[in-house]
Amino acid sequence: MKLYDYLPSGNSYKVRLMLSYLGVNYDHVLLDIHKGETQSADYKSKNPAGQIPLLELSDGRLLAESNAILFFLAEGTPYWPMNSFDQAKVLQWMFFEQYKHEPSIAVARFIRMYAMDDRAGELDILMPKGAAALQVMENHLADHHWFVGSGPTIADIALYAYTHVAGDGGFNLADYPNILAWLDRFSDHPKHMLITDLPA
Amino acid sequence: MKLYDYLPSGNSYKVRLMLSYLGVNYDHVLLDIHKGETQSADYKSKNPAGQIPLLELSDGRLLAESNAILFFLAEGTPYWPMNSFDQAKVLQWMFFEQYKHEPSIAVARFIRMYAMDDRAGELDILMPKGAAALQVMENHLADHHWFVGSGPTIADIALYAYTHVAGDGGFNLADYPNILAWLDRFSDHPKHMLITDLPA
Repeated sequence: MKLYDYLPSGNSYKVRLMLSYLGVNYDHVLLDIHKGETQSADYKSKNPAGQIPLLELSDGRLLAESNAILFFLAEGTPYWPMNSFDQAKVLQWMFFEQYKHEPSIAVARFIRMYAMDDRAGELDILMPKGAAALQVMENHLADHHWFVGSGPTIADIALYAYTHVAGDGGFNLADYPNILAWLDRFSDHPKHMLITDLPA
Repeated sequence: MKLYDYLPSGNSYKVRLMLSYLGVNYDHVLLDIHKGETQSADYKSKNPAGQIPLLELSDGRLLAESNAILFFLAEGTPYWPMNSFDQAKVLQWMFFEQYKHEPSIAVARFIRMYAMDDRAGELDILMPKGAAALQVMENHLADHHWFVGSGPTIADIALYAYTHVAGDGGFNLADYPNILAWLDRFSDHPKHMLITDLPA
């Protein structure tokens, strides 16, 4: 299979992590979102939303949305629970990630990493929203080792991606000790990789 | 089961529609988000995110996030496909709905319905984003009757909820003939209900 990717993207990193943990080999196509490479007519014929990541299967079928790709890769593995209520709880956390967490924490990181002065005003709204999302995670992790069940699932993978680099967005993770402990637990995996690592 | 709900919410309406289509009886608890009823300590002990809808099962287990609730209710029904790639495509559209569609179309509707003059400035950004999301749907529906496969799935339910009231947000659905035809197809169901209908 082939992954269309942009290395600094946490949404893409989720998929790279999952493929690494599963030991799956794949072709890696790097696109530069700042050069408009995800907005070309050719790319938008593959993904009309003009976003990465995008997974292309060997038969040409295409799948977009990082969390939908995680679901597809996780079925039949320990990263997707067996029972339907736990499956729904995994999805609950993944929808929380895309609705409350990524739009504040990832966007704050984007604005600061690229010093986008024209968007700095957005930070007044993004910082309290991101802090609220982190607090929901912090409270949950006070009495849970993992977001759902007794081991890591794709809910943890989805939430790890932008949480572990929340400092880039100006959030102080030292304020969230349960999150810090969970980040350590999660990254203690023989096939872990950094967001800046190219696939092996 | 029990559904914590706010009647004008499209996110809640998704769940009401699903329960109606499946013929499931449930208790209906109406909360007023404008009176802070979803921000009380009691409610936030049930849903730390302080949002509706929330589903409470008869054994007390709680499930939040409208699209995760749809998934839980749809398993084993025709609204959730059998094969894993189609399942992932359903989730792809549902993540699109929560990331690109709802945050523009539902928020524009919210600002206009409640004449929130202090937030009217957001409309300059929300209207082109919402139009772009509608155009992605319009293009897909040019050669598909349903978002995934040969019949309606929870992807259609999720997208129907805020699309059919996009006019409240200032979007002109007459510009999207494929969407209008799909709205007609979707609502032609013996157990269809309006967003303003109380459960039977």
